[in-house]
Amino acid sequence: MTDLKNDLYLRTLRGEKVERTPIWVMRQAGRYLPEYRATRKQAGDFLTLCKTPELACEVTMQPIDRFGLDAAILFSDILTIPDAMGLELVLEEGVGPVFNKPIRSQADIDALGVPDAEDDLGYVMNAVRVIRQELNGRVPLIGFTGSPWTLASYMVEGSGSKDFRRIKGFMFESPKSAHQLLQIITDSVIEYLKAQVKAGAQSLMVFDTWGGMLSTENYQRFSLDYMAQIVSALKADAQCQDTPIVLFTKGGGQWLEMMADTGCDGLGLDWTVDIAQAKHRVGDRVVLQGNMDPVVMNTHAPQVSEQAMAVLNAYGTHEDQHKGHIFNLGHGIQPFAKPENMQALVQTVQTESGQFHP
Amino acid sequence: MTDLKNDLYLRTLRGEKVERTPIWVMRQAGRYLPEYRATRKQAGDFLTLCKTPELACEVTMQPIDRFGLDAAILFSDILTIPDAMGLELVLEEGVGPVFNKPIRSQADIDALGVPDAEDDLGYVMNAVRVIRQELNGRVPLIGFTGSPWTLASYMVEGSGSKDFRRIKGFMFESPKSAHQLLQIITDSVIEYLKAQVKAGAQSLMVFDTWGGMLSTENYQRFSLDYMAQIVSALKADAQCQDTPIVLFTKGGGQWLEMMADTGCDGLGLDWTVDIAQAKHRVGDRVVLQGNMDPVVMNTHAPQVSEQAMAVLNAYGTHEDQHKGHIFNLGHGIQPFAKPENMQALVQTVQTESGQFHP
Repeated sequence: MTDLKNDLYLRTLRGEKVERTPIWVMRQAGRYLPEYRATRKQAGDFLTLCKTPELACEVTMQPIDRFGLDAAILFSDILTIPDAMGLELVLEEGVGPVFNKPIRSQADIDALGVPDAEDDLGYVMNAVRVIRQELNGRVPLIGFTGSPWTLASYMVEGSGSKDFRRIKGFMFESPKSAHQLLQIITDSVIEYLKAQVKAGAQSLMVFDTWGGMLSTENYQRFSLDYMAQIVSALKADAQCQDTPIVLFTKGGGQWLEMMADTGCDGLGLDWTVDIAQAKHRVGDRVVLQGNMDPVVMNTHAPQVSEQAMAVLNAYGTHEDQHKGHIFNLGHGIQPFAKPENMQALVQTVQTESGQFHP
Repeated sequence: MTDLKNDLYLRTLRGEKVERTPIWVMRQAGRYLPEYRATRKQAGDFLTLCKTPELACEVTMQPIDRFGLDAAILFSDILTIPDAMGLELVLEEGVGPVFNKPIRSQADIDALGVPDAEDDLGYVMNAVRVIRQELNGRVPLIGFTGSPWTLASYMVEGSGSKDFRRIKGFMFESPKSAHQLLQIITDSVIEYLKAQVKAGAQSLMVFDTWGGMLSTENYQRFSLDYMAQIVSALKADAQCQDTPIVLFTKGGGQWLEMMADTGCDGLGLDWTVDIAQAKHRVGDRVVLQGNMDPVVMNTHAPQVSEQAMAVLNAYGTHEDQHKGHIFNLGHGIQPFAKPENMQALVQTVQTESGQFHP
């Protein structure tokens, strides 16, 4: 593997003193980019795009080529594990993810096994390998997974949900079975992330899209405890222990201290969180990643620069008692975002953030 | 007006020492009740139900008659003010609210006026009067409004939204116009709430359904500041100053201290908030209202009682350094909730909460 030409993102995640704030953007390879839409059209559907390593590599590279971001993120879906477990994922434009065979009984849970990361999810590992080769050391590659709670939610609901009444009903009425389900997902996620690192992922992110729908106590029991297991397992693995892990719970602003307690390296912040307060709450334990409102990307360049500066200013000067800041949006960039605003964003962060790193 | 037979809810909101925890439930008059569905069917559509004081009274009374809750809440919609402003509200089952004439330009904002609470919104005031008469002092009547930010969101989006890109784009690109819109809504809300009190509302609640979609700074500027204006205006009015006001921002768990600073009497908490922590954060400034996960109401009576006890236990013993607790769900009860679970909930809170009031 080639040495990294731009390792700013990894140095920041290790808590090193750096020259400026690195930037990448959640869902940076996505529908807002015309070249992405072209590749996606060529693939025919989203799952084919995910399952064809060369195409996944192509879209992963697009925002790196166009904007010069400081990290690439594996193009994939958060629901690859349940798909490999046999739930049959269907992704249709405008409908959102649907499982043909959702979890509806104890027997369904008992029948689940941990997918083999190379045999059953080889297309993901192949994508990681192809992307690493194509990146050729330009920037680091981020691997990722959905959180156990988020995967369980989709698996039990069978699709997205507004109220999560199936998975929550299950949690309230059959907590033992819910924990059984979460444990097998967690075991699968651990194998999946280890395999991503072995294939070449240089950093990892856990997307807990739906943990924020839980009460504080249930968040801890049904989402955070399993993410903590994942962090521990990775940190106990000789090949993975140096690979930084970032946890992101959308709507988790109330729980940053508990999240930092897992021993993860960084926390993703959604845009509702005051990053200045977050910095004081987590102290020197974790790097913070975020957190501009994604909707700003639908406005114009002056607003984008202004709001990006507001986030940089809110985090403020990088001091020894805090671990650092990685610029990102507070959630994935949306299909209606303007590509030229991404240019303005990257430029603002890359040219203006040096002043906060004296 | 008759003296109240059950004034537990009002005594709690005034911070008095009480004998047990009062309970009412957001959207307690709603689709989960067969008698509500019958009245609604009779009315033909939702807006007719809101606009016919006798029918609004009928559905307001239904959960009081059936469950013996400690407060009634005016049956109405949060979007009556924009409707009275001329935006033409349409409420269709399964679609959510839509405005035929949304706000799309500066001229649209300039054309807005403050509706006269009796001339333009007389049906609401008549409903308050009819309900007060029908209640005949059984329990207090809560009046309510949507928050200025929430009303502005619907007015600009023209309907519900997942990303609020129109209203937020407007806020980022034309903050002066956004403030102009919020101010006229705020002026209207103040008149509306004053009129509700004069018509007989004994307590008020402001529902900030969408404030939680904002960054901390924008929440303060575009939502909370206007709610603070409302609180101040009511507290400065001789006829309204003794009427307690509760603010509820869904997703606002990070901002409780700021919300308490408005001088309101109580804060509604959604189910994600740890009520024990909230109690310590707000000290003796406000009563807390909430916050069981509404999805529990879809399970069975043992889970309902268990989770209700968990909330009562989390708030814990009522002590002098805290102002008090009103039991509620953390959001409106959902159509799929089981009426028998409401019975179990009310019974648990009314029979078991005395132990927390030594």
